[in-house]
Amino acid sequence: MSYAIGLDYGTNSCRSLLIDITNGEELGSVVFPYPSGQLGILTDPADPNVARQNPQDYLDGMVTIVRGAIEQARKNRPGFDPADIIGIGIDTTGSTIIPVNSEGTPLALLPEFSENLNAHVWLWKDHTAHREAQDITQKAAETRPQYLAKCGGTYSSEWWWSKIWRCKDVDPDVFQSAHSWVEHCDWLPAVLTGNEKPEKVVRGICPAGHKAMYCEEWGGLPDKDFLASLDPDLASLRDRLYDKAYTSDVKAGELTPEWAEKLGIPAGTAVAVGAFDAHMGAVGSGVKEGTFVKILGTSTCDVTVSPNDKPLADIPGVCGIADGSVLPGYYGIEAGQSAVGDIFLWFVNHLVPDSYGATQDEKFIAMEKELAGGKPGDTGLLALDWNNGNRTILTDVRLSGLIMGQTLHTRAHEIYKALIEATAFGALTIIKRMEEYGVVVNEVVNTGGLAVKNATLMQIYADIIGKPLKVAASDQTCAMGAAIFGAACSGKITISEAQAQCCKMREKVYHPIPENQKVYDQLYQLYRTLHDGFGTTEWSGKMDHVMKELIDIRQKQRA
Amino acid sequence: MSYAIGLDYGTNSCRSLLIDITNGEELGSVVFPYPSGQLGILTDPADPNVARQNPQDYLDGMVTIVRGAIEQARKNRPGFDPADIIGIGIDTTGSTIIPVNSEGTPLALLPEFSENLNAHVWLWKDHTAHREAQDITQKAAETRPQYLAKCGGTYSSEWWWSKIWRCKDVDPDVFQSAHSWVEHCDWLPAVLTGNEKPEKVVRGICPAGHKAMYCEEWGGLPDKDFLASLDPDLASLRDRLYDKAYTSDVKAGELTPEWAEKLGIPAGTAVAVGAFDAHMGAVGSGVKEGTFVKILGTSTCDVTVSPNDKPLADIPGVCGIADGSVLPGYYGIEAGQSAVGDIFLWFVNHLVPDSYGATQDEKFIAMEKELAGGKPGDTGLLALDWNNGNRTILTDVRLSGLIMGQTLHTRAHEIYKALIEATAFGALTIIKRMEEYGVVVNEVVNTGGLAVKNATLMQIYADIIGKPLKVAASDQTCAMGAAIFGAACSGKITISEAQAQCCKMREKVYHPIPENQKVYDQLYQLYRTLHDGFGTTEWSGKMDHVMKELIDIRQKQRA
Repeated sequence: MSYAIGLDYGTNSCRSLLIDITNGEELGSVVFPYPSGQLGILTDPADPNVARQNPQDYLDGMVTIVRGAIEQARKNRPGFDPADIIGIGIDTTGSTIIPVNSEGTPLALLPEFSENLNAHVWLWKDHTAHREAQDITQKAAETRPQYLAKCGGTYSSEWWWSKIWRCKDVDPDVFQSAHSWVEHCDWLPAVLTGNEKPEKVVRGICPAGHKAMYCEEWGGLPDKDFLASLDPDLASLRDRLYDKAYTSDVKAGELTPEWAEKLGIPAGTAVAVGAFDAHMGAVGSGVKEGTFVKILGTSTCDVTVSPNDKPLADIPGVCGIADGSVLPGYYGIEAGQSAVGDIFLWFVNHLVPDSYGATQDEKFIAMEKELAGGKPGDTGLLALDWNNGNRTILTDVRLSGLIMGQTLHTRAHEIYKALIEATAFGALTIIKRMEEYGVVVNEVVNTGGLAVKNATLMQIYADIIGKPLKVAASDQTCAMGAAIFGAACSGKITISEAQAQCCKMREKVYHPIPENQKVYDQLYQLYRTLHDGFGTTEWSGKMDHVMKELIDIRQKQRA
Repeated sequence: MSYAIGLDYGTNSCRSLLIDITNGEELGSVVFPYPSGQLGILTDPADPNVARQNPQDYLDGMVTIVRGAIEQARKNRPGFDPADIIGIGIDTTGSTIIPVNSEGTPLALLPEFSENLNAHVWLWKDHTAHREAQDITQKAAETRPQYLAKCGGTYSSEWWWSKIWRCKDVDPDVFQSAHSWVEHCDWLPAVLTGNEKPEKVVRGICPAGHKAMYCEEWGGLPDKDFLASLDPDLASLRDRLYDKAYTSDVKAGELTPEWAEKLGIPAGTAVAVGAFDAHMGAVGSGVKEGTFVKILGTSTCDVTVSPNDKPLADIPGVCGIADGSVLPGYYGIEAGQSAVGDIFLWFVNHLVPDSYGATQDEKFIAMEKELAGGKPGDTGLLALDWNNGNRTILTDVRLSGLIMGQTLHTRAHEIYKALIEATAFGALTIIKRMEEYGVVVNEVVNTGGLAVKNATLMQIYADIIGKPLKVAASDQTCAMGAAIFGAACSGKITISEAQAQCCKMREKVYHPIPENQKVYDQLYQLYRTLHDGFGTTEWSGKMDHVMKELIDIRQKQRA
């Protein structure tokens, strides 16, 4: 027997998945909600852009979720033996970065910094560094256009260099105390394998290539001259970072006796190089050339691959193209929406009255019931999905939400529908952009909580995207992908063998309904007018038709 | 002793006010919520534009509110005698029109039409007749530009001819069965004085001049050729309408013995010609040259006057300028916002969670508390106040609401603030337009529920409008104005004497706070960009600065 464990560190919780690598059977899985802050996020009431995390939550969660999964496996599979676990893989959110001292200890875990938000983990959705991101973009445009071309033309405030630079700007003390910085997905394998010291941490090509402008073409990280042109301290930090990054089929090390004891898995078990959740989730969903994977969660990531033996054009606004970031031998292509599930959660928690139900879940279910039998455009509403900025294709965090078309009769479930539609229009915009630049999309495979639980959303997505949508069988494709890498890094199985054995689809396929598609094509034109009008500096034109057409469509659809 | 009774028929209820005409003291007042439909409004789930009422509600309310006020007056003033009531005045919403048979009986009160919404009262905010309004506007622009000039350049779907024509289009049976049509404010005095027969109804100049394109310049109602160019049936209806309309200082008739019995007031008591609520409310608020009266209710009406012995330019987008519609001897100038309080009610009833409180009132109070100490622009939000279309200055019902600037942290009370601000920006737009065309605004007097109850709103209005705002002392200025006309039509006192004796101001005056005014000036520029962009066909330009500036202002105000 061969087993593997995947660990998936999300925005609000972490979870484990223990699988039988010969058939993908899921034998154990435990979730650990981060105890700190609000749903695991440390915020600052004075600045809605701040989003930090406590690294202690990650360590506490590790023990709970691994031990819990093993306990379940013992129940589900008589004779299960943790010694048959051939590897451990880990994915996390990103760019989620940690300032560490020369021992590799996160500053936030030191008493002197325990109350300082800037010494904590800078979560992917922290948007404080927009000034820095703008300056990096501008400087790169002037002197290193090749850097920008690989990240969609705009360097983001969500990414590595923006955040580190921001830290120096707002908290020089923390910056100076940080001997180095580590991505969350590199830190956890380093901890498990006893390689925390910054010079020993094995860095993944996924975070490096997407977020830190790492590329073998120009010798790894951005050159020192470029970094010095931003800030001399960034140039000297480069010496304390890394020269080489690795794909996740590579072993980051072996489990230390100390962690073997804590987790109940033999010391020496292989631990894979870490990567981001979306990338491992795509692998766990069976990504291959022509397969476009959408991970629908609090935010959304879209991932596909293209063989690295044929050239691939840079795609404006598509922030991540990196060789090996998803599968070895392929360019990984990553795009995404800064908020999808988060927009629905915001709405249900802050704007849906209790007449829909007492709990969040009851409210969602009641709203979906109200929407049953409705038609596209019957709400008369149109929204933009920018409550947390726009990652792809505008790469601009300084955007915000918009809802229009309200009457005095508009109800909460209608706004919920408009918000679902807005996120679907955002998704369509990404696919269209990739197709324009030659990426082939033969099939769309969806995964993540929303894909599994929200049939209303999935049908609207099918109608708007205009392609049949499949749903991965596993509820936990990110952890599944991590387990696949855990197994592969042991050298006992290849990734494609493991994908073939483990990645399955559900029976239900969402097919576009032609008459809905037609109406959504009209609505998408209006969405694009708002999208281009409010989101680009190039657009100039008229807006007065938007409200009128929404009313015309509403009247027609209600008649 | 001299008393008068004013009856104010609003959108959701009617109320009485019995005053001592020598000093304005309020001796009795009773409210009657209309029992039919939702809050007195009959709606059609298939079409949010439909808003009708049941005329029986008006009659049932009449007895309750008049008898109740008299009963209270007996308690409040020992020796009170209804025989000392010198007159009754009535105001209603408008254009709120009733199809009647040759006896003057509303069709809705006949058994064969009791279930037919089209045979009921077409409430002012019924917006089904936009096609008809467009056609009337277009035809008048081609052949009778003088008609349009008097109503702001656009004939509205809320008005007399649009609705009557609409009725013919959608329900020829009701149209053919209607011998004539009567404005609500003309119908009630006719009922009380036994003049229901259409040819005997005394028509007010206020509804006629504002809504039916009546003007002495062109001999009363629109000429038959013009009406025939719309529809020959409208031309023949003209013969069954009226040639002459009257100001409300004129007596419509005297109370019949039958109604004297029902109400407990002597037969023969003078009943004034009816007018709209806003116009009588302005009189009850002490309107005179230079005094701008805002009646802040479910919708808002702005009223001022200008002496009719000097010329007054037509004002684009200001829908109502009519000689004598407010005070005899003056042009009445009327503008308004299609929804103000209605927007807040929509929001609190459909989108504010119970964490703010269990009832509507608790929610409003909790939201106002949350807003205390806030600064302009600190929400980052911007809204358009068009959930019910825009009456002034765009005169376009086919507009809708808009809210932008939402993040994942936006809370309900912040949206409430943005909605208040949107209605204030709408109010400012109206005042600016009037001032551009030479109307002098020396002081702003506010009345209506919101002016009295909502100090948060009033301060925001002062900061945005940039003028000190006063509040009329009476809670019921519409009914007060109606009572003043009731007294005046008896011939025993003039209107200006009665205003001097009865119209008082509260002590609290809302002064603009200069630093708030400065920020709101910036926000108003953004509001105007959205307003002109979405609301006019002339606008063309860029929108991408709007979200960015909202974020800049928010950051500055929160710092």
